Amino acid sequence: MFQKILIANRGEIAVRIIRACREMGIATVAVYSEADRDALHTMLADEAVCIGPAASAESYLDMERIVSAADVMGADAIHPGFGFLSENSRFAEICEKCGIRFIGPGSHVIAHMGNKAEARKTMIQAGIPVVPGSRNAILTVEDGLAAAEEIGYPVMIKAASGGGGRGMRIAETQEEFEAQFRTAQREAEVGFADPSMYIERCVKNPRHIEFQILADSFGHIVHLGERDCSVQRRHQKVIEESPSPALSEELRSRMGAAAVKAASAAGYENAGTVEFLLDSSGEFYFIEMNTRIQVEHAVTEAVTGRDLIKEQIRIAAGEPLSFTQEEVHLQGHAVECRINAENPEKNFLPCPGTIEEVHFPGGNGIRVDSAIYAGYRIPPQYDSMIAKVIAHGSSREEALEKLAGALEEFQLTGVDTNREYQLRLLRHPVFRAGKQDTSFIETYM
Amino acid sequence: MFQKILIANRGEIAVRIIRACREMGIATVAVYSEADRDALHTMLADEAVCIGPAASAESYLDMERIVSAADVMGADAIHPGFGFLSENSRFAEICEKCGIRFIGPGSHVIAHMGNKAEARKTMIQAGIPVVPGSRNAILTVEDGLAAAEEIGYPVMIKAASGGGGRGMRIAETQEEFEAQFRTAQREAEVGFADPSMYIERCVKNPRHIEFQILADSFGHIVHLGERDCSVQRRHQKVIEESPSPALSEELRSRMGAAAVKAASAAGYENAGTVEFLLDSSGEFYFIEMNTRIQVEHAVTEAVTGRDLIKEQIRIAAGEPLSFTQEEVHLQGHAVECRINAENPEKNFLPCPGTIEEVHFPGGNGIRVDSAIYAGYRIPPQYDSMIAKVIAHGSSREEALEKLAGALEEFQLTGVDTNREYQLRLLRHPVFRAGKQDTSFIETYM
Repeated sequence: MFQKILIANRGEIAVRIIRACREMGIATVAVYSEADRDALHTMLADEAVCIGPAASAESYLDMERIVSAADVMGADAIHPGFGFLSENSRFAEICEKCGIRFIGPGSHVIAHMGNKAEARKTMIQAGIPVVPGSRNAILTVEDGLAAAEEIGYPVMIKAASGGGGRGMRIAETQEEFEAQFRTAQREAEVGFADPSMYIERCVKNPRHIEFQILADSFGHIVHLGERDCSVQRRHQKVIEESPSPALSEELRSRMGAAAVKAASAAGYENAGTVEFLLDSSGEFYFIEMNTRIQVEHAVTEAVTGRDLIKEQIRIAAGEPLSFTQEEVHLQGHAVECRINAENPEKNFLPCPGTIEEVHFPGGNGIRVDSAIYAGYRIPPQYDSMIAKVIAHGSSREEALEKLAGALEEFQLTGVDTNREYQLRLLRHPVFRAGKQDTSFIETYM
Repeated sequence: MFQKILIANRGEIAVRIIRACREMGIATVAVYSEADRDALHTMLADEAVCIGPAASAESYLDMERIVSAADVMGADAIHPGFGFLSENSRFAEICEKCGIRFIGPGSHVIAHMGNKAEARKTMIQAGIPVVPGSRNAILTVEDGLAAAEEIGYPVMIKAASGGGGRGMRIAETQEEFEAQFRTAQREAEVGFADPSMYIERCVKNPRHIEFQILADSFGHIVHLGERDCSVQRRHQKVIEESPSPALSEELRSRMGAAAVKAASAAGYENAGTVEFLLDSSGEFYFIEMNTRIQVEHAVTEAVTGRDLIKEQIRIAAGEPLSFTQEEVHLQGHAVECRINAENPEKNFLPCPGTIEEVHFPGGNGIRVDSAIYAGYRIPPQYDSMIAKVIAHGSSREEALEKLAGALEEFQLTGVDTNREYQLRLLRHPVFRAGKQDTSFIETYM
């Protein structure tokens, strides 16, 4: 097992990883930017190294400084968390070359699955259903129009190297195709330095269903059930739950098998997520694979009783999976809300600033993952998420009631948050009925 | 189901019950003393009624005021929590007469099990092992000496109506019997207005093992496994865990069956705890039955996944148990620490005062039950327990690591606490090895 792990991240996920290491008896090294001197992850780690100025490009995204820090501090592994360098194949490759274990899949797998067109091809070969779409990278409007004609409108135009909703546009008709294509391609060039696009059929009002998988270095692959992340605002997940109210046991079994097959086709190792769209007729389509731990991993931990961060570390250290697919059981229901320092009244404008007072909820079935405290100054440079509140109940209804109660008890002064917006979401009759799809927020909120 | 429940308690257990009611859609009425105007339970309940001055006798122990409050506010049930009136058979009787459901067993059962000599007789008749001891109430030194001679020294001298370590003395030899008997009897007279004593064999360095039971009004009784509460200071539990590191599956099954038999013999209904001493040879003896929810119920909730407060409410409302003994499974391991506002350096002197800042721990498997917040003034009139921290892990070792980490993260300024003392206990090699008995603190700390 590793002696010392460097955590190449900040915020609640860095704290989450530090806690897991502490429980496993592994020493931790935090890295922090000048804006994060007083951050909780900096304080909780056994050692901490300042790696540069507040700007992410000069600190949390600076591969050389991070690898140097690991080297100097004698860390034998790096956990990248999510965001930042977690899906950067070059970073994984540098770690490999420096003899430092990157806690995640191999760099070639990250690279392959990170290219959406390539990942798509692999899935088609493996017989995983994908949304009908263009086979090769499309660079011109003419090729795009031809592909769209074959697929049938409405179509989704996507940046091949994209993510997070950027470089993504819908063309409802042939008439609007050109304008949408050019806009998406411009975003792709600016955002990902890659003008390659692909066109796929637009699945109308689908649910976002993703499967958590774990794969060890001995070829064992299991899935840990699904997460329903259909409540999204601009392709950003807002509420996540497990299991999905839309899946029957039979569909779960079929989609889970497809997820395991997808991971196998990708030659996957470590924790990953296979994302699907599920349409209203019950058909599902692979959309992408995330080659890292996800924000919403805690709902899976709640219902399966497995610690995903520890599993990641064990797998990276060469240990075999300690359980089989048959030993995975979903117990009860879990829901997570992301609490962001932002103002829903002002178009969700981030609200960095100093937290005056904060009171976390507690009690039976409530988990809070956060890196904030009273007096903490939220830096403006990073993501606005400041806490995750996860409720685990015996039924979906109980979990929703627990989460709503916890959000009521969650008190925070000094900065604006989306707490009340989340409460409105949680109490919306369509969501209560489990009927949400990805258009839910746009349609009802 | 009840429409409105009055909670005849304060502190974290009142908050715990309010949360359960909220999740069940039941309205809540808090009662509070003048010292508890700013208490969390007063704020979180749907309605709150001031029932008198700070002194417990004039507020939380004042049966008439509490029943009047329930009547005026239209509550159809009262949850007594633990402590205060929770084991007062007269209070339960008044509730019954006023047509308000007392959430607990019938008043006659509380009275019967509250009298230790009576409870003992019932258990002997039911064939439950008890510590060899005197059959009838003993009032004189002469009768006591004769009984002790028959039982064999060392003997335990106990107040028949006693509890919490008062009116309890050990006589190691015949020579010291008289002095110890007179001291114990004096405490019994002052403390419980009852000079009746009984004498039993002194079990040397036993473990305190208690079984959680649930019994509905249809005669179904199940046990939810045991709690090991051997870490005690002056007969007060300090750390509790489930399952016990001392029980084999076979012994758990035998003791569990005895606990169910004990509850059946008592004609029990609702949640209760059957307490045993377990000696080093594996023999166990009934000591008493607690006819209420206990402080340490959360460790049972963690390993069984059942919500004991909700079960209490459902049973009191006449619902049958929703699961059978075969459906009770202990998953992983849970440990609880009681955080008290007290100074271990000054003989655990309670330290009421104003909390300046407080930061609760969080993350995977950590539960905090508390009623404190930054700026909260802890009144001097009540129990010094201000929080319970519960860790749930896949193994005992993981649970202990989690709890130690959580206590490290728990920050509180303004009043002294036993946090560091608890950390020392958690890290003691004897406790780590699971070898603690009730003499652990006295011997090692």
